Amino acid sequence: MISSKITGTGTYIPSIQKENAAFANEHFLNEDGSTFSSENEIIIDKFKTITGIEERRYSKPEYTTSDLAFFASQKAIEDAKVNPEELDYIILAHNFGDVKQGAIQSDILPSLATRVKYRLGIENPNCVAYDILFGCPGWVEGVIQAQAFIKAGIAKKCLVIGAETLSRVIDKHDRDSMIFSDGAGACIVEETNDSDSGILSHATQTFSKEEANYLYFGKSFNNEEDKNVRYIKMLGRKIYEFAITKVPAAMKIALDKSGVDIDDVKKIFIHQANEKMDEAIIKRFYRLYKKKTPEDIMPMSIHKLGNSSVATVPTLLDLVLKGKIDNHQVNKGDVIIFASVGAGMNINAIVYRY
Amino acid sequence: MISSKITGTGTYIPSIQKENAAFANEHFLNEDGSTFSSENEIIIDKFKTITGIEERRYSKPEYTTSDLAFFASQKAIEDAKVNPEELDYIILAHNFGDVKQGAIQSDILPSLATRVKYRLGIENPNCVAYDILFGCPGWVEGVIQAQAFIKAGIAKKCLVIGAETLSRVIDKHDRDSMIFSDGAGACIVEETNDSDSGILSHATQTFSKEEANYLYFGKSFNNEEDKNVRYIKMLGRKIYEFAITKVPAAMKIALDKSGVDIDDVKKIFIHQANEKMDEAIIKRFYRLYKKKTPEDIMPMSIHKLGNSSVATVPTLLDLVLKGKIDNHQVNKGDVIIFASVGAGMNINAIVYRY
Repeated sequence: MISSKITGTGTYIPSIQKENAAFANEHFLNEDGSTFSSENEIIIDKFKTITGIEERRYSKPEYTTSDLAFFASQKAIEDAKVNPEELDYIILAHNFGDVKQGAIQSDILPSLATRVKYRLGIENPNCVAYDILFGCPGWVEGVIQAQAFIKAGIAKKCLVIGAETLSRVIDKHDRDSMIFSDGAGACIVEETNDSDSGILSHATQTFSKEEANYLYFGKSFNNEEDKNVRYIKMLGRKIYEFAITKVPAAMKIALDKSGVDIDDVKKIFIHQANEKMDEAIIKRFYRLYKKKTPEDIMPMSIHKLGNSSVATVPTLLDLVLKGKIDNHQVNKGDVIIFASVGAGMNINAIVYRY
Repeated sequence: MISSKITGTGTYIPSIQKENAAFANEHFLNEDGSTFSSENEIIIDKFKTITGIEERRYSKPEYTTSDLAFFASQKAIEDAKVNPEELDYIILAHNFGDVKQGAIQSDILPSLATRVKYRLGIENPNCVAYDILFGCPGWVEGVIQAQAFIKAGIAKKCLVIGAETLSRVIDKHDRDSMIFSDGAGACIVEETNDSDSGILSHATQTFSKEEANYLYFGKSFNNEEDKNVRYIKMLGRKIYEFAITKVPAAMKIALDKSGVDIDDVKKIFIHQANEKMDEAIIKRFYRLYKKKTPEDIMPMSIHKLGNSSVATVPTLLDLVLKGKIDNHQVNKGDVIIFASVGAGMNINAIVYRY
């Protein structure tokens, strides 16, 4: 039986480290433009306790999202030892396109996937390059789409990338700006005849009633700024409540479809959105099976890398596979779960045997 | 055998008609900012001779791309008589997101597909909504993706939309601005057991060497305008040369895959980019089979609707199916071809038995 397998991964971690202390002098405001009653130091401490974020990475000014995507892609191609000319698809997930430092426009013409293909120097016109917009779960969804193309018989090798430069779309007057970061992760998904490994099952959902606007493009909290200039905005509390219920349920749909026993799950690679939220999701996921959360089930990269949207899951996977996260490794035969949640609101999960 | 069939179509044609004469007082410039030696009247006459465009449609100021997409979707759903709650996917192709009248930022958070799902009031979370960026061929590619999901067993009913408001991203100093228009077209793609009809084959290609930048986001031709504000720009001559060679070749790949004889092709629905270019493409396509172009093979809507990017092919299909284009109809059993070309540079073609 045909299966789809990740044969290589790569990540690009931007070089600019921005510590929490760097936000000490920002003028944070409430949504209505009013000033906080607490000092920045207290805001930052509370932020760190909830999200787990100590520092985040920002891209060099001269790079845009497609550059980061290209750097991660090169590494994934090398890791998988595939000939880039043999790629059938380049699927690139992002949320804001290429936003130049200091600019406010998203450049998405041509697609960022085309830009990556250009930079990779691929001549083969049958390598189809397109972008998907699917919120933070975009990379996981790209892997699901790659698998669909493989199952449908129209692809054998796909490059799937998640890349983002959220530092270019943050409102510095919004304390949520501290969450967001830049990054890129990529993988090669290939057809394999080894049906014992690869993608076992998946689940994807879009919640678009009230949830449609939990993450949105909105004006600065500073009422003196141009109201026509918009930034990434989120209703954090609502997202939290939504995610801790809906993500475990979607993960359960995927796991039950796979037929794998909950006790056989070795690692969960979850979107690095917020440490407390991620912990609550995993706890509730295990509770659905009347189990306690096992130790070391959830590798985390958020402390040092922040939330780089579509890039978090492939980056985390690459770091663990390359032995760069203490106490976390994946061995041949291990069942792992990828899970993500974000703008849309979209949720997805993949159950995968390594 | 399982096949994928278009069971309903819908289009939204914006209400604002803009005739060529409306451009008579524009101050057109060359790329380097220099003034044209000829009068606007002559420029417009020449433009009409080449492109065939007499007038184009612009969206009402209060609508954005996702509104147009919603209007077209409602009609496609009604036409297919499907229950929107049964949709497995909403795939929306566009190129610039929601750009408000007078604004320069693209709003793509959340995805436009989520906005359409919201407007349709769909509760079912298993209806997955995402956007693709694939240049003008985005709608055709969306249909190909829907087919892949059906073949892979992860979908039975998909809504595929192409929507665009190019009037919001044009440089009024660039005479190419006269080409672009607004619009939306949608269809429902469903799984069918009737293997005699539906999608027979397809071909998709991405040319991303030098061609990657034939359509791009660039500054105004007026050097006095803000260089950081960018608009849709194209290298018309290069696109023309590229398209008349590569599009016929891709159409031939798809037709040869389908096993259908060239003489059995009844209609070709080609992206409405430029009338002379479209005629040259079709002529060369038939020449590849050593045939003359049959009469009435190519319905056209460009004269009155201009080039609305991703919206042209579904709009044209809907107009013909609803008997709104003189001398053009499609009957049960007819083989038709969809073909498109645009930013990427992407090309695709579908051979379809009605």
